[in-house]
Amino acid sequence: MDIELPDHWRGWRRHWYIVIFGADTPKGKRFDLYLLLAILVSVVALTLETVDSVVFGREALFWAVEWSLTILFTLEFIIRILCSPKPSKYMFSFFGLVDLLSIVPTYATLFFPGLHFLGMIRAFRLLRVFKLLKLGRFSNEFELILDALGGSRHKLIVFLSGVATVVLIVGTVMYIIEGGENGFTSIPRSMYWAIVTLTTVGYGDITPVTNLGQFMGAMVMMMGYGLIAVPTGIFSAELASLHSGREPKKSKHCKPCGEDRSSSSDFCHKCGEKI
Amino acid sequence: MDIELPDHWRGWRRHWYIVIFGADTPKGKRFDLYLLLAILVSVVALTLETVDSVVFGREALFWAVEWSLTILFTLEFIIRILCSPKPSKYMFSFFGLVDLLSIVPTYATLFFPGLHFLGMIRAFRLLRVFKLLKLGRFSNEFELILDALGGSRHKLIVFLSGVATVVLIVGTVMYIIEGGENGFTSIPRSMYWAIVTLTTVGYGDITPVTNLGQFMGAMVMMMGYGLIAVPTGIFSAELASLHSGREPKKSKHCKPCGEDRSSSSDFCHKCGEKI
Amino acid sequence: MDIELPDHWRGWRRHWYIVIFGADTPKGKRFDLYLLLAILVSVVALTLETVDSVVFGREALFWAVEWSLTILFTLEFIIRILCSPKPSKYMFSFFGLVDLLSIVPTYATLFFPGLHFLGMIRAFRLLRVFKLLKLGRFSNEFELILDALGGSRHKLIVFLSGVATVVLIVGTVMYIIEGGENGFTSIPRSMYWAIVTLTTVGYGDITPVTNLGQFMGAMVMMMGYGLIAVPTGIFSAELASLHSGREPKKSKHCKPCGEDRSSSSDFCHKCGEKI
Amino acid sequence: MDIELPDHWRGWRRHWYIVIFGADTPKGKRFDLYLLLAILVSVVALTLETVDSVVFGREALFWAVEWSLTILFTLEFIIRILCSPKPSKYMFSFFGLVDLLSIVPTYATLFFPGLHFLGMIRAFRLLRVFKLLKLGRFSNEFELILDALGGSRHKLIVFLSGVATVVLIVGTVMYIIEGGENGFTSIPRSMYWAIVTLTTVGYGDITPVTNLGQFMGAMVMMMGYGLIAVPTGIFSAELASLHSGREPKKSKHCKPCGEDRSSSSDFCHKCGEKI
Repeated sequence: MDIELPDHWRGWRRHWYIVIFGADTPKGKRFDLYLLLAILVSVVALTLETVDSVVFGREALFWAVEWSLTILFTLEFIIRILCSPKPSKYMFSFFGLVDLLSIVPTYATLFFPGLHFLGMIRAFRLLRVFKLLKLGRFSNEFELILDALGGSRHKLIVFLSGVATVVLIVGTVMYIIEGGENGFTSIPRSMYWAIVTLTTVGYGDITPVTNLGQFMGAMVMMMGYGLIAVPTGIFSAELASLHSGREPKKSKHCKPCGEDRSSSSDFCHKCGEKI
Repeated sequence: MDIELPDHWRGWRRHWYIVIFGADTPKGKRFDLYLLLAILVSVVALTLETVDSVVFGREALFWAVEWSLTILFTLEFIIRILCSPKPSKYMFSFFGLVDLLSIVPTYATLFFPGLHFLGMIRAFRLLRVFKLLKLGRFSNEFELILDALGGSRHKLIVFLSGVATVVLIVGTVMYIIEGGENGFTSIPRSMYWAIVTLTTVGYGDITPVTNLGQFMGAMVMMMGYGLIAVPTGIFSAELASLHSGREPKKSKHCKPCGEDRSSSSDFCHKCGEKI
Repeated sequence: MDIELPDHWRGWRRHWYIVIFGADTPKGKRFDLYLLLAILVSVVALTLETVDSVVFGREALFWAVEWSLTILFTLEFIIRILCSPKPSKYMFSFFGLVDLLSIVPTYATLFFPGLHFLGMIRAFRLLRVFKLLKLGRFSNEFELILDALGGSRHKLIVFLSGVATVVLIVGTVMYIIEGGENGFTSIPRSMYWAIVTLTTVGYGDITPVTNLGQFMGAMVMMMGYGLIAVPTGIFSAELASLHSGREPKKSKHCKPCGEDRSSSSDFCHKCGEKI
Repeated sequence: MDIELPDHWRGWRRHWYIVIFGADTPKGKRFDLYLLLAILVSVVALTLETVDSVVFGREALFWAVEWSLTILFTLEFIIRILCSPKPSKYMFSFFGLVDLLSIVPTYATLFFPGLHFLGMIRAFRLLRVFKLLKLGRFSNEFELILDALGGSRHKLIVFLSGVATVVLIVGTVMYIIEGGENGFTSIPRSMYWAIVTLTTVGYGDITPVTNLGQFMGAMVMMMGYGLIAVPTGIFSAELASLHSGREPKKSKHCKPCGEDRSSSSDFCHKCGEKI
């Protein structure tokens, strides 16, 4: 645990640095666990606060939980800055910003009560759980899913572009066929219907009423039903190929040219070198 | 069929032990089959009892079926305890508790008529069917599905955690955008909407009405439509890898350390020994 | 084309036998094609007959189409019996019965006008299209899908049994939680809701209203969203294994014991002989 | 870039030919990019024009965008014809017709204002984006998806025929069971319901009300839930087999006979030569 800490970094700073940033030490693990619990409690409190029947008669409790946890998170934020070797780097990192934005709304409610729910931004802090998971048995699984999603990124973008074009054209056609009196009041709303139908969600808040519209709708449904095969196929082919030919995870870059390589290719797509 | 029965365990006890617990003897098989039929009849009776048009005029029949089967199950439960070599082990096993809880509610209705439908707990007894299936041609298929589900357990948990975070954030955002007058009356209800949408169920009991809300909703649908690829991909990759590299099913435990090994790993996850 | 025809089977009988039963002769192909067209026309006519706006003013046309095609099908049926070497075998085959049941309802309408739509049974005759497809390029694809469905039969049954148990238990629990006033009027109706939800259809005709019911519903949705991976995974693993290890299609039976073998097994499941 | 241009094709014609048709030159790339942006702007404008709240007070702006882009596209169309070596070939190609049909409606509105939205036909021009993508890193992914869809074409057609037969029969049965008073007013409408249910869209605009109808509906849902495995399995098996056995992409035609070969076959389907 002596990573890039300046030599004179001793005493409480060093101690807190290890506790807060060192997820792989026993103390650091315990700290992260308690922090996650505190975040979870504050997120659940914020969530339940919107349910009138739960809050009624317990306003003081919710107020106490909210403020005590906010003060705790503020202290944590200050200590993080004080004991970090490069405070500015932490502050402008994703988690640094989320940490800041998690506590600001509560203070802001002193002046603008409406900003209250912006505190929900602290839900993003729950993503810290993956820092903990990284160390455990979930590490490989997590990386595998991310690798597979990353490796099928390009294919998924191409697929979504195709779907977007279909949505645009179907939306316009249905706007012309059904018209405003049947709920298709504008092309954007028609496109909303097309997405609701194509993804097989099917709310039923807007539905075709004319014969031609129902026929078109049925075609769109069949298309959506069949097209779901595409992302599924892409992702599972990627996952299967990762599953079987799992190389040691060190070299993710083509050595000769330094280009980042897609996880399933055998040759660098830039310089053609065998990997 | 001489498994761990005490030597002095002779006569009717031995006979009933073989009948009740020995699923791989002809008598045991027949007993299990009749038992399953009886459970099925009692479950169907309990189910139909809630349909007024079916019950009307047949109250006596339903009463007779319910009580005669309950008495039968009570006798079976007593015999199971009497002829089991270790009665306490059976009583506190999953099936022992289910067997007890299946008969108690019917007796309880003598005092508290409302507890009637707790008898539905006996539906769990239908799971005994898998004890029968284990012996037949379904055995391999069943184990294969369980193995694949077990092997992809960690990945599925990681996936569900990600989905839960998305539901939390989307729920809050939609609560702020749409507000109570459009049905998004609280964050939990908003999260319910997010799950209804993300899983492509789409009841339509709560739907976004504002333009921004419909745009957000469309994004969530596309996400749900694409994300379904993840569990499907995980499960089919697991199944495919099991399918191809199917070793003989004997050694499911790492020999050196005895740890149960996940079906798709090449090294014991505890002692690192090559399997 | 001299399959099992009696020697004395000459003249018009032989001619018609080749035309009607011989799908792989040019004449037989043309006959099957025209027959399919006639069936299609009669099915479309029966379908459109239920749309008032289409029928209005064209009753005579529909009447003419219906009767002329019925008479044509009757002639075809008589010729099939006359020129078939084993008329009784044809008459009691699946297609023989469908052929008969396709024409009976039209005649029956002379006495009972309500039986009209039973004529829709002729839609099954459209399945003859696969006799034609068998000869063309679709043959392999068709067999492949059937093989994969057949090979994953056992797994799919196990899966559906599991789903049925879940539906039973979820249906009962929701009946208790929500009760009749929220649409869950009986356990069977509650099970209907469970299936609507678990399959992600989500009509919205019955939806949970209480907080606990919505929470349970959300769990069921997540389960349905995840469980869809199981049949998909089963089928695609089967298809993938068929795809790669495609043996020559001749021997579909274990030679030593004659038992039909599942398409993906390497050993006969009956006699254990290596295939 | 000296492809099949006549020798005397010099000066501005040659220059514009390279700019407009040569997607792999820097100038051509830039032109295609600006053109795509212009098409996108005009499509978004047409889309938003149907939203009253957006258009209100900005009629002049929309009018100006529409007409200036139409004139631009007209100029582009004229230049394309002038500098193309074979103008008639371009004019009767898919993109030539789309280009023409994209500009005609705007001029037509001078006489028939209702034809306005036919201009949406220019959304098809967005498909030009794939000409650009072809050159970049998306090329392989795009071809892979198309190859997999192409290779599983026959299987998907067979599957859809099966689904269509099911829809026909289920639609008729439900029309008879539920009848007009429950929304199943005709067989085509009943088939629309069957598609809505089978594809798990589930609007809820038409739902079974009788007990038998709900039971049938539940069966259809289970079928639709299971059947989705088929297209997904087909597509992912195809993709997986393409993924693994990816040959160098040069020879897409059978050498001996020149026939285009399906991407997954080992022998030419026309001359039977091993590839």
